[in-house]
Amino acid sequence: MLSRTLFRNLSAIVCLSTLCLSTSVVAETKPKNIIMVVADGMGPAYTSAYRYYQDDPSTPEVETTVFDQLITGRASTYPANVSGLVTDSAAGATALAAGIKTYNGAIGVDKDKQPVNTVLREAKRRGLRTGLAVTSQIVHATPASYVTHNESRRNYDAIADRFFDDRIEGQFVADVMLGGGTDYFIREDRDLVAQFIDAGYQYSDDYNKLATYPSGQNVLGLFAPVGLPWALDDRRENRLAFLTKQAIRHLENENGFFLLVEASQVDWAGHANDVASAMAEMHDLAMTMAFLQDYVEENPDTLVVLTADHSTGGLTIGAGGDYRWEPLWLKAMNASAVTVAQQFPLEENPVEYVSETLGFRLNETEAEAIVALVTEEDVRARHKGVTKILDERTNTGWTTSGHTGVDVEVFAMGPGRASFLGHMDNTDIAKKLFALMTNPKQSNMSLSDQTDSSESDGEQENDVCDFKTDWRC
Amino acid sequence: MLSRTLFRNLSAIVCLSTLCLSTSVVAETKPKNIIMVVADGMGPAYTSAYRYYQDDPSTPEVETTVFDQLITGRASTYPANVSGLVTDSAAGATALAAGIKTYNGAIGVDKDKQPVNTVLREAKRRGLRTGLAVTSQIVHATPASYVTHNESRRNYDAIADRFFDDRIEGQFVADVMLGGGTDYFIREDRDLVAQFIDAGYQYSDDYNKLATYPSGQNVLGLFAPVGLPWALDDRRENRLAFLTKQAIRHLENENGFFLLVEASQVDWAGHANDVASAMAEMHDLAMTMAFLQDYVEENPDTLVVLTADHSTGGLTIGAGGDYRWEPLWLKAMNASAVTVAQQFPLEENPVEYVSETLGFRLNETEAEAIVALVTEEDVRARHKGVTKILDERTNTGWTTSGHTGVDVEVFAMGPGRASFLGHMDNTDIAKKLFALMTNPKQSNMSLSDQTDSSESDGEQENDVCDFKTDWRC
Repeated sequence: MLSRTLFRNLSAIVCLSTLCLSTSVVAETKPKNIIMVVADGMGPAYTSAYRYYQDDPSTPEVETTVFDQLITGRASTYPANVSGLVTDSAAGATALAAGIKTYNGAIGVDKDKQPVNTVLREAKRRGLRTGLAVTSQIVHATPASYVTHNESRRNYDAIADRFFDDRIEGQFVADVMLGGGTDYFIREDRDLVAQFIDAGYQYSDDYNKLATYPSGQNVLGLFAPVGLPWALDDRRENRLAFLTKQAIRHLENENGFFLLVEASQVDWAGHANDVASAMAEMHDLAMTMAFLQDYVEENPDTLVVLTADHSTGGLTIGAGGDYRWEPLWLKAMNASAVTVAQQFPLEENPVEYVSETLGFRLNETEAEAIVALVTEEDVRARHKGVTKILDERTNTGWTTSGHTGVDVEVFAMGPGRASFLGHMDNTDIAKKLFALMTNPKQSNMSLSDQTDSSESDGEQENDVCDFKTDWRC
Repeated sequence: MLSRTLFRNLSAIVCLSTLCLSTSVVAETKPKNIIMVVADGMGPAYTSAYRYYQDDPSTPEVETTVFDQLITGRASTYPANVSGLVTDSAAGATALAAGIKTYNGAIGVDKDKQPVNTVLREAKRRGLRTGLAVTSQIVHATPASYVTHNESRRNYDAIADRFFDDRIEGQFVADVMLGGGTDYFIREDRDLVAQFIDAGYQYSDDYNKLATYPSGQNVLGLFAPVGLPWALDDRRENRLAFLTKQAIRHLENENGFFLLVEASQVDWAGHANDVASAMAEMHDLAMTMAFLQDYVEENPDTLVVLTADHSTGGLTIGAGGDYRWEPLWLKAMNASAVTVAQQFPLEENPVEYVSETLGFRLNETEAEAIVALVTEEDVRARHKGVTKILDERTNTGWTTSGHTGVDVEVFAMGPGRASFLGHMDNTDIAKKLFALMTNPKQSNMSLSDQTDSSESDGEQENDVCDFKTDWRC
């Protein structure tokens, strides 16, 4: 696309000229709108791998990606001392949202379980419209940490309650909420969807219906019981770009807006050591970032920052002493490895079904492995059988079903971009956003949030989600 | 150190003001001296891990490292198409030295095995003094690729011959050469050390003797038969900083110099999946970078660029589903894991010896594992037994004995630093150096090197070093 390419070049020049300003002058560039994008679990290996996954094999060069165009720095991710050096998504999101180190499992609360202010809440307090567009349930660790406070990420129902009950100067905290999670909002004990509708929110559980609403509404959109289907399974292509676009058109107003976007399932693919879904979720994110490049081109008063909360799975490009990584085996899949694992025992010819769905003919060893798993009752074991085929074909490495402590990359475009150059801590990202949102000439922040109370239904110190027992944790 | 801290702050301001210039003006900042530092195998996980390894546990905060202070961007590392997506050190070094993609195994030659010009050779051609300071044998892939040409990295003797025989306009290619490699320079068929001495070079095989030479000499220093001892075993603390300092004092002159520094053994530790040596080699590099910070402070006409050729081992900070990484177990070692593995069967009380050398008391399981390995003849198996203890104590993950394809970080300070911001390809690093060295106003490069010939003693297409059979490959 010519206009986008042109803009990217222009953007580079603008960024250089932004850097012409001294630090204090840089800080004076106050963005009207802020879009914070979190790619949950996206360590450096994910963006490198995605470049090779999306490479056009018909050209001699390796094409650069939107991530290559936007990278500005990197961030350390370690949580508060009490949780060691490897963060979970709750402590990571609280660091990114509130600028403080806390314990693993904490949702918008500090080490003493006291609520802390977040950039989304500060935006609401300052009269901006606020929203979120995510591919997990909207009460999952990352969005929850921006919106509310809870001593444990696992208290999903209590967090959903807070999405309705919590107010800032009489107003709801988030004006637009798009993602999954009907299980937490329509419950036997409480129907939060009905309450939001009564309070004037548009509600949708259907992508196409969502697209029909007139702009500028308050909207709750929940498109799945928990998280959205995997990108490889979802019926809407580029689902996160779609949700982001929808969120923005409801948020735009003369005072500006703060939007949290999360590519939640990069992390879930990492936990599952599922390289096919990892790359498909990265593509879903890349399409979102490309949309946001166009948006910033048309709305140059918008700052977009992208980072990850941590890396997941210990993904490596190459493994087992073999200097090889072949992502082409992932390019023709027409369902996720999870769906394949769920489905193949039900098929008349499982090997044929797996071959057709993965997009390549299984060899003898692979076919035997699938046949041996037909009677396996544990879908996780069957999923492992499918991902083993993909790992061997691509020569992908993994070291964990959890997170790792490698620094994550930071990307930015728009006014304020220069603040995100070089090395920073994850807490600095929130601090920079607070500074850009408040009086850019001073970096003092309002971190107190005394009017809020934290839920306390559970003892959850160091509450790390165990992916071995919970895929979508 | 106050002066260094002050300088770092000043440096940040200088860097910002450098960025005030437009792209073309940035390119006009011609450094007098260029120091290119390659940390072989140092993927992003290594710099993150080093931060936690070197953290002072007596302070509440995690201290930043010299790498955090200097990071500017990141680089892709894939080799020429024929070698897939995962580079070896030869193709990686040729990309960094010459700005071209080539096949794995290639030393300063292109895909057609034709010699290509390198930044070190270009410097010599332009009248700068040239040198190298490395911890591998000086004929190893990285230094060899900067200095000369050969179709295979394995032709060590032929490469050593070229170090003497190859001339640029009648002059030796490298004026100062410090590292290991007497095995390749003093051979039955040829004594290259004697030839270099006859040609006017100072020669030393002793660190302390090296330190006594008056400055400004041509020097060959070979301090080990092959590579230098591991940092954990070497009798000179901060050995690479020492060699770098020695190289610089012989290279300094009014026309400027080009120095290649390589922290070669970060890669070897990665191949060996040896986290203790990985961190110790990183510390050796960090001390070198700290020395170079001071040097640039005193010599602000010097550009220093640091990057890696690739990542090695698939190192991850945390593994096995456990959200934990505990580098404190590596802090009290007084010999390398390789030395421990070589030595413990010879000790009267192997368990006691291993405990004392690792710096912590082995638990029952660990002690049993060591006892079971006393009769194991393969030192590699014994080494694996020792590193298994370290991996479990620290909870470190690895996926390969080879390399991986993750992008590597890029660091820079001094005039020209602004050229190394954001994303680039490894070949761009050489192109930027060529541009900064030639006429900074134009980026055309002289890549032809027709006067040189390439050795051709071996069929080595895709010649990847197999670490399973060769530790120091």
